[in-house]
Amino acid sequence: MIKTVIIGSGNVAQHLITAFRESGNVHLVQVLARHPKTLEQQFPDLDIITDAASLAEADVYVIAVSDNAIGAVSSQLPLNNKLVVHTSGTTSLAVLDPKNRRGVFYPLQTFTKGKRLAYHHIPFCLETEHESDYAILHELAHSVSESVYRISEDQRKALHVAAVFVCNFTNHLYQIGHDLCEEHQVPFAILQPLIAETADKIQTLTPQQAQTGPALRGDTETLNRHLAALTDATQKEVYQLLTKSIIDHGKKL
Amino acid sequence: MIKTVIIGSGNVAQHLITAFRESGNVHLVQVLARHPKTLEQQFPDLDIITDAASLAEADVYVIAVSDNAIGAVSSQLPLNNKLVVHTSGTTSLAVLDPKNRRGVFYPLQTFTKGKRLAYHHIPFCLETEHESDYAILHELAHSVSESVYRISEDQRKALHVAAVFVCNFTNHLYQIGHDLCEEHQVPFAILQPLIAETADKIQTLTPQQAQTGPALRGDTETLNRHLAALTDATQKEVYQLLTKSIIDHGKKL
Repeated sequence: MIKTVIIGSGNVAQHLITAFRESGNVHLVQVLARHPKTLEQQFPDLDIITDAASLAEADVYVIAVSDNAIGAVSSQLPLNNKLVVHTSGTTSLAVLDPKNRRGVFYPLQTFTKGKRLAYHHIPFCLETEHESDYAILHELAHSVSESVYRISEDQRKALHVAAVFVCNFTNHLYQIGHDLCEEHQVPFAILQPLIAETADKIQTLTPQQAQTGPALRGDTETLNRHLAALTDATQKEVYQLLTKSIIDHGKKL
Repeated sequence: MIKTVIIGSGNVAQHLITAFRESGNVHLVQVLARHPKTLEQQFPDLDIITDAASLAEADVYVIAVSDNAIGAVSSQLPLNNKLVVHTSGTTSLAVLDPKNRRGVFYPLQTFTKGKRLAYHHIPFCLETEHESDYAILHELAHSVSESVYRISEDQRKALHVAAVFVCNFTNHLYQIGHDLCEEHQVPFAILQPLIAETADKIQTLTPQQAQTGPALRGDTETLNRHLAALTDATQKEVYQLLTKSIIDHGKKL
């Protein structure tokens, strides 16, 4: 059993608590939280502390707080030479206080409060300051998930940008679809099977194999009709730029 | 049993053939195809004809050919006062030859050659010239799918634009994610669970509830770091515009 402490009480912390407790190989010793209320309600049998002075002995300390608090939180821990990791996709390992052995434990997924996830499919992107710590961090991740990767800082930051494209921006395209449905009084439910299938295709095809549509076909007649049908200036701009990007991408092949 | 003839041999035609044959309520009498080879291999027991003169009697004739061929194909059919429909999201019903009773039978889904689909979840968007024909077209669609909608031409065209956003453009964002992975030598598989979960969220949450990320949070520090990390000019442009679009959308709420 890997003795683990989580520091934080937000969305990622809550999901890690659930994942660690479901795993047979992790002993979640404590959670340190400044605002313990939500956690106490959600996990009544958890040992939640609010004072870092009461921190217990553990193999790994996982800081799951907002990116800009990681440095300060790590400095306030009364620990020395312990394995202390953060869970951020964009933050350097170097932001952690060097009094401890530092690492990164980044689960690449979009976490929704209260929505269950198949934790064993979540990719964990790991980095450690000391090679000798990698095995323990790998064991912790592997206790939760089948999908564990050694990822450098540069790679992790690139993955974080990529995640913005395939998650945040994709969801915004769903939003535009939703807005168009509202504008024309058709239920958004009509688009849901298409959204599901578009994502499903990418589990077996490359994006290049899966690409379809008027931009790829160079069907300017449809493109012009679509542009004329859009009434919102930003939607028009997005339509034009993504069309151009698809066409340019095709030329590079 | 609704006696049905399909005209066409492409992707949509092939999927409709499968869907109609799996349904207990559709009698697929014939398929008219100029290039019958692929169909003959895929459906050896199908009655495939190449000459419109041999067209059999049916309740509905479904033209599943490319958008710009619909008009000409419909004129060449030696039929009069029959229910003839096309399957296009962007084409007006009026493109069909007026010698027949016209309609639209638009399955809103992305069809991949050879990839099985749950046809009973595909939304069918229906329109008929004559009110009295709606019931038969509804019965045909309902023989395949639980999800049947009466959709006007304007609504259908809006749905087609919306489909470009949530399918074609979304897949292009997957492509950008894929390109970033290649550039930084990480496997695209790391992004696949995120892609799946992003689409899955939208089956129960609205896009607004599901939206996350630095643009929504107004986290300019992360936005600037992401922009600095992107080396491709078009990727930068897409990042900036979609970020602006998310921010502007938030202001409208």
